Amino acid sequence: MAFLARQYKVLAAYCLVVAVVLVFALSVQAAASFIFGAFLSLLAGFFGMKAATYANVRTTQAATTGNKANTLLVALDGGAVMGLAVAGLGLFGMGLIYILFQGTDQFGTVIHSFAVGASSIALFARIGGGIYTKAADVGSDIAGKVIENIPEDDPRNPGVIADNVGDNVGDVAGMGADIYESMVAAVVAAMAIALTGTEATMPNLLAGSDSDNRFVGIMLPLFLTAIGLVVSIIGIMITRMLKNLNPAVVLRSALIFPPIILVIVSAILMPILGLTQNITIALAVGAVGGALIGLVTDYYTSASPIAKIANSAKTGAGTSLIRGLAVGMESVAIPILIVVISAYIADNVLGLYGIALAAVGMLAGTAVVMTVDAYGPISDNAGGISEMSGLGKSVRDITDELDAVGNTTAAIGKGFAIGSATLTVIALFSAFNSEVNHARQLAGAGDLVLVLTDAKVLIGILIGSILPFLVGSTTMLAVGRAAGAIVEEIGRQFREIPGLIELKAEPQPKKIVDIATKAALYEMILPGLIAVLAPPIVGFLLGPAALAGTLAGALAVGATMAAFMANAGGAWDNAKKYIEKGHLGAGHLKGSDTHKAAVIGDMVGDPFKDTSGPGIAILIKVMSVVSLLIASLIALR
Amino acid sequence: MAFLARQYKVLAAYCLVVAVVLVFALSVQAAASFIFGAFLSLLAGFFGMKAATYANVRTTQAATTGNKANTLLVALDGGAVMGLAVAGLGLFGMGLIYILFQGTDQFGTVIHSFAVGASSIALFARIGGGIYTKAADVGSDIAGKVIENIPEDDPRNPGVIADNVGDNVGDVAGMGADIYESMVAAVVAAMAIALTGTEATMPNLLAGSDSDNRFVGIMLPLFLTAIGLVVSIIGIMITRMLKNLNPAVVLRSALIFPPIILVIVSAILMPILGLTQNITIALAVGAVGGALIGLVTDYYTSASPIAKIANSAKTGAGTSLIRGLAVGMESVAIPILIVVISAYIADNVLGLYGIALAAVGMLAGTAVVMTVDAYGPISDNAGGISEMSGLGKSVRDITDELDAVGNTTAAIGKGFAIGSATLTVIALFSAFNSEVNHARQLAGAGDLVLVLTDAKVLIGILIGSILPFLVGSTTMLAVGRAAGAIVEEIGRQFREIPGLIELKAEPQPKKIVDIATKAALYEMILPGLIAVLAPPIVGFLLGPAALAGTLAGALAVGATMAAFMANAGGAWDNAKKYIEKGHLGAGHLKGSDTHKAAVIGDMVGDPFKDTSGPGIAILIKVMSVVSLLIASLIALR
Repeated sequence: MAFLARQYKVLAAYCLVVAVVLVFALSVQAAASFIFGAFLSLLAGFFGMKAATYANVRTTQAATTGNKANTLLVALDGGAVMGLAVAGLGLFGMGLIYILFQGTDQFGTVIHSFAVGASSIALFARIGGGIYTKAADVGSDIAGKVIENIPEDDPRNPGVIADNVGDNVGDVAGMGADIYESMVAAVVAAMAIALTGTEATMPNLLAGSDSDNRFVGIMLPLFLTAIGLVVSIIGIMITRMLKNLNPAVVLRSALIFPPIILVIVSAILMPILGLTQNITIALAVGAVGGALIGLVTDYYTSASPIAKIANSAKTGAGTSLIRGLAVGMESVAIPILIVVISAYIADNVLGLYGIALAAVGMLAGTAVVMTVDAYGPISDNAGGISEMSGLGKSVRDITDELDAVGNTTAAIGKGFAIGSATLTVIALFSAFNSEVNHARQLAGAGDLVLVLTDAKVLIGILIGSILPFLVGSTTMLAVGRAAGAIVEEIGRQFREIPGLIELKAEPQPKKIVDIATKAALYEMILPGLIAVLAPPIVGFLLGPAALAGTLAGALAVGATMAAFMANAGGAWDNAKKYIEKGHLGAGHLKGSDTHKAAVIGDMVGDPFKDTSGPGIAILIKVMSVVSLLIASLIALR
Repeated sequence: MAFLARQYKVLAAYCLVVAVVLVFALSVQAAASFIFGAFLSLLAGFFGMKAATYANVRTTQAATTGNKANTLLVALDGGAVMGLAVAGLGLFGMGLIYILFQGTDQFGTVIHSFAVGASSIALFARIGGGIYTKAADVGSDIAGKVIENIPEDDPRNPGVIADNVGDNVGDVAGMGADIYESMVAAVVAAMAIALTGTEATMPNLLAGSDSDNRFVGIMLPLFLTAIGLVVSIIGIMITRMLKNLNPAVVLRSALIFPPIILVIVSAILMPILGLTQNITIALAVGAVGGALIGLVTDYYTSASPIAKIANSAKTGAGTSLIRGLAVGMESVAIPILIVVISAYIADNVLGLYGIALAAVGMLAGTAVVMTVDAYGPISDNAGGISEMSGLGKSVRDITDELDAVGNTTAAIGKGFAIGSATLTVIALFSAFNSEVNHARQLAGAGDLVLVLTDAKVLIGILIGSILPFLVGSTTMLAVGRAAGAIVEEIGRQFREIPGLIELKAEPQPKKIVDIATKAALYEMILPGLIAVLAPPIVGFLLGPAALAGTLAGALAVGATMAAFMANAGGAWDNAKKYIEKGHLGAGHLKGSDTHKAAVIGDMVGDPFKDTSGPGIAILIKVMSVVSLLIASLIALR
């Protein structure tokens, strides 16, 4: 809470500055909508944090009864509070703006501002939270395991509290803001195409007539998201019924049922509403594509790839790192090809609007995905609490089993997030072009045709291609620097607090939390500003063609780098756990050279999967919504 | 030589297959030109190998006299044989085709086939050589340093010979084929635009009249490259005059003088020939841009960034790897921005043709760049030979000093290579579009406008974005697998050859060479085929718009990934050397934990900088020239 309070202060200052700019550049309504979108994002993170911190303790408590099924439910319920809050707040916010502004000239600007508010807060929350959590994790790991040789989650290590806090601020609050943003961006992309699109980008949605096509196109993504929320609640209820099965089966079915139900509901509803079944097809390719990407991501972070990484750790950290990097690179191909095929089908049935609907379909189960995602850190922290409270091995065994499943589902959730981000950015990209041309028509200028061989577009592609690397570099360095400061402070405490090693004195975890907080808030500024300022700088200096190229270049590099980093990180993490479980034999358990090599992979993977990878995935969305918002201002440059 | 003989057999089979396809798809002349381009590439590599292997021994011999300046010259002369052979063969081949076919309908197809021959051999040579050299390096390092604890280049380690061979096949023969290809691709890109370009892509080159614009445009890149060769010879002579200065100064001036002289010569010649000075401007931005990229690359692989990586090795391999990855990511930005600015200026003065001329300007000093590049492995191997022959510390000191400079100049050379690759691909890209439209006009179809918001183009961008990751993954894995096999064989020899450790028996280096050779030849096939087959598969299945998107996506990801991997690898390598030189103090020398952490970074960096990074840089060029060649066949799909 201390971290959130300070982070929110920094973000409030950011919002104020942007809002003032928006009042002058666009309108008071746009500024208000921006603040509203940002506020709901903060609220989603706050609810999640509250629910997760309560659920941590309750899950530990439930585990002491020895009832695994009930412990699973307690953890899942904690996640569900977050999941339903995120989806509900997103729907509420966009619904309110729809009711207030739909049909007015303001609608486009206002809804885009809402998305920018949601996106930029998500970016800062994700990056700030990611730096905090991984600095605390890497810092206390290095200090605890390597320097002082005490076990993980040992209460003498003053970094452990910060590590637990980090799981909440990064994986819960950061993830909540992230998924809230994904949902908003997908809906807004579809709305934006419907608002300014032509027949080519949005074919007829009404079987027979075409009178109210634009109106239906604007309302439809909101309507489908609402159905998605209802379906998600059903999905969470199904999960409760299955509680006595293997936890892995329970969580996977929670992710897979809602998309299937949604497609069935859509197939029934569309003819009744007089709409084309092409809508169902677009939704279905998104929903199925999302699930497939999740399964592929799961494969690369759990099956034979991690066994190979673990085995290569036998010849040292170098070979294990090479193998992990190769696995991460390979893991990019199939998910992106699935996106390509989904986009191809969706485009064939409903043009670029279809691609946006596919993204909506992929995110229709947002509430469930978020529930399962939040479940991971909750059970992870429950394990930490049980260790620190000395509750014994039987309790820890239950929380460990639940935690292991959480890692897999977190990978699936990340797959969904990156897949939907890619589809959403494609849709936002063409919405940007529509918006530019709309503004040009109003000014009496001809359409801007984005020709790929235009030097400005090519230059833009190259500029865009470096931005994900800059965000990757700044966030990696931030984690490294902050972790270094934490290691030093832990070392100082062990040296200067007499009796700490003999458990006769208390460590000072507050100081570690303080260092991590300050570092995260300071370090999130640079990568955040790169994402927010790059589009206006390119747009106002080089014009809309260069900005479009920048978005395309950032998409190509960002989608692949995000998947590469997230999956390599997940694979190293699980390879380490695979070794700890004894799959390589007793000679390679904790303390062995093999395990030490795997720990190094995990350490590199930590910022990969929880800071830089997710940060890059949001980067490309933030850039797209900011570009959409400023499209009319730079259209004639 | 054994490696080259076997590699050439595999490549001959590849050439035969492609030639047969070309006879049926295009013409006999195209097939012959393809084989000619490939043959000259092999010849360039062969000459380089011969010269380098002689120069290795001679450099060691020169070092025994204690005369550093003369030793430097011997090593440089060895490199110059290679440099002049590469540039001379390239010029000879293209000149011959120009003389035989210029003015005929065949010219475009024939010169493109020549480029495809050069490019695909360069790709295989680079990847095969890169796998060989890094597998031998990593394998004997792991076995020698980690398992058996004997010093580097120890004669008992049977992997050392393979490591030395690797320096020649990867860094000399591979690099020679690579730079030969860069030069050919840049010239062919300019010719291709001149052949089919419109006024927008190629403004008037003749001050006043425009009658022979196309003719001049085709001849000009060849003419400028010839001047570049003459200038390079002058540059090599200047280097000889400076031999008594600090080796670092000598080599840097070798790289910096030729571009400056070329620009001056062009500024004098153009008015005399009645051509516009815009040509000089385009050349100059390329030449200056190349030098600047080289200096930036030098900074990231030598100055404060490597000191920071070295310092972070104090807290272990994890932090040192995180820091190195961050440095690599950051190092992408400025070189790509320099390319952007060069391209922007060149486009302003001479359209897309100007961008191609800038690439020609960047590569005008090819002979010198190659000389300096080949110098690196020559002095490296001279060090190895002196160690293995037991020539003592004073000899080794000289070779070590020369070797250290070689690392920096290799980094500069790589900067040139990646920068020129990016510019060349931009130019080839627009040549591809010209060629497609030319073919469509002949068939009576309308122009293909590559619209960035076209779903096919967007899908292509995503397909293109995964290809560099696939090549990266397959090459990283190949090095890992081959290194593993080598470690096992070295372990077997130490176990099974009695008396090896006590220097009473000889190791069996031939077996190691054999394993590395087989592995490299087998493993180069998959990444090679990805590069060669991706364009026809996308082109014939999805059409020219999707293929154009694929090239753009591969360019965005490939240019940045290649720079990231090359620079991160170079930085880790030099950080290790920085520690070995004692900059962190005596407590961190060889054998310390800090040094061990740095060795792990170097091990990961080895395939990064010498296999995957350069492989990805060639990938994007191969894809572009193959696309150009098949443009007319897929134009109507």
